[in-house]
Amino acid sequence: MLPKAVKALIRQNKLVQPTSGMAKGYAQANLVVLPKDLAFDFLLFAQRNPKPCPILDVTEVGSPEPALVAPGSDLRYDIPKYRIYVKGQLVEEVLDLEKYWTQDLVAFLLGCSFTFEAGLLDAGIPVRHIEENCNVPMYITNKQCIPAGVFRGPMVVSMRPIPQEQVVKAVQVTSRFPAVHGAPVHIGDPAAIGIKDLSKPDFGDAVTIKPGEVPVFWACGVTPQAVAMTVKPELMITHAPGHMFICDIRDEDLALF
Amino acid sequence: MLPKAVKALIRQNKLVQPTSGMAKGYAQANLVVLPKDLAFDFLLFAQRNPKPCPILDVTEVGSPEPALVAPGSDLRYDIPKYRIYVKGQLVEEVLDLEKYWTQDLVAFLLGCSFTFEAGLLDAGIPVRHIEENCNVPMYITNKQCIPAGVFRGPMVVSMRPIPQEQVVKAVQVTSRFPAVHGAPVHIGDPAAIGIKDLSKPDFGDAVTIKPGEVPVFWACGVTPQAVAMTVKPELMITHAPGHMFICDIRDEDLALF
Repeated sequence: MLPKAVKALIRQNKLVQPTSGMAKGYAQANLVVLPKDLAFDFLLFAQRNPKPCPILDVTEVGSPEPALVAPGSDLRYDIPKYRIYVKGQLVEEVLDLEKYWTQDLVAFLLGCSFTFEAGLLDAGIPVRHIEENCNVPMYITNKQCIPAGVFRGPMVVSMRPIPQEQVVKAVQVTSRFPAVHGAPVHIGDPAAIGIKDLSKPDFGDAVTIKPGEVPVFWACGVTPQAVAMTVKPELMITHAPGHMFICDIRDEDLALF
Repeated sequence: MLPKAVKALIRQNKLVQPTSGMAKGYAQANLVVLPKDLAFDFLLFAQRNPKPCPILDVTEVGSPEPALVAPGSDLRYDIPKYRIYVKGQLVEEVLDLEKYWTQDLVAFLLGCSFTFEAGLLDAGIPVRHIEENCNVPMYITNKQCIPAGVFRGPMVVSMRPIPQEQVVKAVQVTSRFPAVHGAPVHIGDPAAIGIKDLSKPDFGDAVTIKPGEVPVFWACGVTPQAVAMTVKPELMITHAPGHMFICDIRDEDLALF
């Protein structure tokens, strides 16, 4: 099914489930919605930290239409499930934003690792958490993002174990996709970026690391959500984990060359 | 001389001249300063149009320090010459911003073609306006930038004639530098992007196109200045043409790989 058809079902609440594997070949995106008075600082934070915060689209103030990546769609309805945070506290999960959308909100769509994982799989590189049918392991690092205005915080990374002989290829493949986290931020020793124990991720699930495999770390889209949360905004809206926005642009449209 | 030494002279007004060729190997940048109330729209415009508006740094509101590309330097003093625009009209050229800087200004530094021209020369590709010791020819195209908030306008391009057999190489070399306009936006027929006569550029100087050479067009840093001007901001400050800000980062720091 093409993105528009999938989104039509989502809009009717007929597809309330994680979007992984839907509309194969098309890019999916993380959602962060903030009040306008935080929008400049957040956009600047993303601009300064493009690896964890790769921006695919930003709506005009008050408009729910992501005009660049899915013209005609409506971010109030076209995601399967949303999370509502008031002053940094999760208060509700909802299926649409009818009740919460106001004219002073700005929606940010941020690139998602699904795109580069498709690239890894196409190149014959295993993606362990897909094989093990669990969530990718994510870790809070000792690398601080570059602050911007009120926003600051550590970079969160995701980890994928890669066979030693395919590490270079994994760097090359993901370098093609800077709009979806791009090249790894670290290869090898977890301690070097402040990770004590790979078997205890801060988010997601631990995965098997086989002999001869190297842990490779990519900047993770959880970073901007975590950072936005620290300032306890009056209202912040995100997608529910795994319930992404499906763009009308293809993964390959995000490739550098 | 290294960037800090050059900027020390500039700060003392001992070097009031175009910066081309100074601190070789280091990146230079275009300056646009706008009031905070326009900053979000302008940052979003740049985000949506990275080829004409490649952002290298944005200062915190009221701060004149470009903390990413030249920590410790001061944008009020460290550029040889500035232009002051009030409601879209050029009112003055000044050697520092002492008189004009206020706590509600935001400064944007945008990548400049000097960096990728160094890359072209290193690859043995001629750069005609350097050979002919004149300004690069620039043209207003029929390609509209993606609007953002109050900002909209056509893309301005610069043109360099490239020998037929070096066009592919020119694409590859400049693709490495997305932070300074990146790959060309068009190769060949000027009419296809709305340019009627290459001998009559809208800005800069016409250059010789030799037999066997193809006109190759890159997005140009004049675009954001031209676009910012159209909304006639109460105050807008830019560098004077050719009098750029010299960053402490190297051209190669801006290379993708």
